[in-house]
Amino acid sequence: MAATNGNTNGGNVIHDSRFDPNFTQHVIDATGPKATPRMRKVMGSLIKHVHDFARENELTVEEWMAGVEMMNWAGKMSDDKRNEGQLMCDVIGLESLVDEITFKLAAETNDSATASAILGPFFRHDAPILQNDDTIVKDVPSDGQIVYMHGYATDLVTKKPVPGVWVDVWQASTNGLYEQQDDNQQDCNLRGKFKTDEKGYYGFYCLRPTPYPVPNDGPAGKLLELLDRHSFRPAHIHIIAQCDGYKPVTTQIFDKEDKYLDNDSVFAVKESLIVDFKPLKGNPKATLELEYPIVIAPQQGK
Amino acid sequence: MAATNGNTNGGNVIHDSRFDPNFTQHVIDATGPKATPRMRKVMGSLIKHVHDFARENELTVEEWMAGVEMMNWAGKMSDDKRNEGQLMCDVIGLESLVDEITFKLAAETNDSATASAILGPFFRHDAPILQNDDTIVKDVPSDGQIVYMHGYATDLVTKKPVPGVWVDVWQASTNGLYEQQDDNQQDCNLRGKFKTDEKGYYGFYCLRPTPYPVPNDGPAGKLLELLDRHSFRPAHIHIIAQCDGYKPVTTQIFDKEDKYLDNDSVFAVKESLIVDFKPLKGNPKATLELEYPIVIAPQQGK
Repeated sequence: MAATNGNTNGGNVIHDSRFDPNFTQHVIDATGPKATPRMRKVMGSLIKHVHDFARENELTVEEWMAGVEMMNWAGKMSDDKRNEGQLMCDVIGLESLVDEITFKLAAETNDSATASAILGPFFRHDAPILQNDDTIVKDVPSDGQIVYMHGYATDLVTKKPVPGVWVDVWQASTNGLYEQQDDNQQDCNLRGKFKTDEKGYYGFYCLRPTPYPVPNDGPAGKLLELLDRHSFRPAHIHIIAQCDGYKPVTTQIFDKEDKYLDNDSVFAVKESLIVDFKPLKGNPKATLELEYPIVIAPQQGK
Repeated sequence: MAATNGNTNGGNVIHDSRFDPNFTQHVIDATGPKATPRMRKVMGSLIKHVHDFARENELTVEEWMAGVEMMNWAGKMSDDKRNEGQLMCDVIGLESLVDEITFKLAAETNDSATASAILGPFFRHDAPILQNDDTIVKDVPSDGQIVYMHGYATDLVTKKPVPGVWVDVWQASTNGLYEQQDDNQQDCNLRGKFKTDEKGYYGFYCLRPTPYPVPNDGPAGKLLELLDRHSFRPAHIHIIAQCDGYKPVTTQIFDKEDKYLDNDSVFAVKESLIVDFKPLKGNPKATLELEYPIVIAPQQGK
């Protein structure tokens, strides 16, 4: 009732005089005294933006309901192997933005640790623990190029090598599918966890990554279609590096020769994450090499 | 890559210099040439608001992921009897706001037809067709008060009675449950469709409505808990009135004696929708009466 009692301009949230100027503040003010300050701030802001969005576009009931049905569809498709709600956020850049915010906030106390990127929906907590110089390629595709990827983990502050860093990597095969999406790949193909040795060294064999489309059989794919956008991601390898006493780093590295670097469907590419795969001679196990240093920041800052 | 190539302020979307000023415009500009103008406008605005929301609150990865999981949870709970995504929107006032927008836009061509309100998640398309002066109360609860509700449908412009208007009504029982939520109620209890006669008359017997909580076993309930809000809706009866050649009206009418009028959990109450149930003498079928005129606007405007 308070929502529509008059046309006064006394409310705190006023946007468009055609619509009740008190409504949004009325909804925000319904928050009770026991809500946490953070919940009050975040949800107050969300309510304001969602309402402004509806008013600015004079959103129709049909359009709003189409959005509700896409969200419900995303929930129904999601399970322990797929997170379609996350993918919906990814295609509008939200995961990359939240990642940027997180990284910037961290960078205000530390300097230039390895840049971060989004986790993506295909991470698994139960990846196999492997030994350095093992391969993650259980099934070698006929069009696959084997890469020897290696480097040293160093401390951002002391610049010294860091032993005992867990380097968790995963990638899609050349058909664009992660193993959990593909019945023809062995369980945990192209996934592994390595630990840096006493010199900070890690190394393993993997595939040169290839571009692939994000799954387009759900609402995220429908949204891309409605926006007349392609669904391809540039070729990349996922990495999480973590070690006790250091801030964990979640990142992706991108092949500098990829044609989708400028228009990643989930907007995760940063200049500092682009790497160069180089020809490798004299190693029968691989034809390419990627040297990739990992810089991690101490938990407490400088 | 374009998302992070420098700190220039040349983008169209600039909010907080701590974060990449070009990122949001880069995401918006990914929209392709074949997207419809409406899709381009609505999604561009949505992307801008969602990004601004994330930046203004410096949203963390954990908070964002908690939101994704609530959306996925809503989708999983939704089925043909329940729409939890819709309920999530309702508790932040979005359905009521979209309804207000729709009604205001209609009111700019017509004057003052019966005010609208939200559809709510418990409408059924297959409600039984009944005769005037029938009852919708198949199961009479021991604490129920029977109301004779009746009135005339009139044309907004000509003020004349309108025959042939379908009046579709539904309400919860005194235990707060709609029949599809309650195994102890017969199918389509407290639901019916009536047609105005040649004089524009409709009438039926129903229950005096009672307040009830929206379902709180899902993410909408969790959100209300986090916001320290109660989940009650004020007592109401749902009505859809429609007739060929007229704009359909979806509304709810509220009992003026209800204690939740000022703090409806889904913000649907408007002053013009509050009605007065009056004592009824001399009718053995009911103890209360509600006279409720329905005013509908011609499809073409004036």
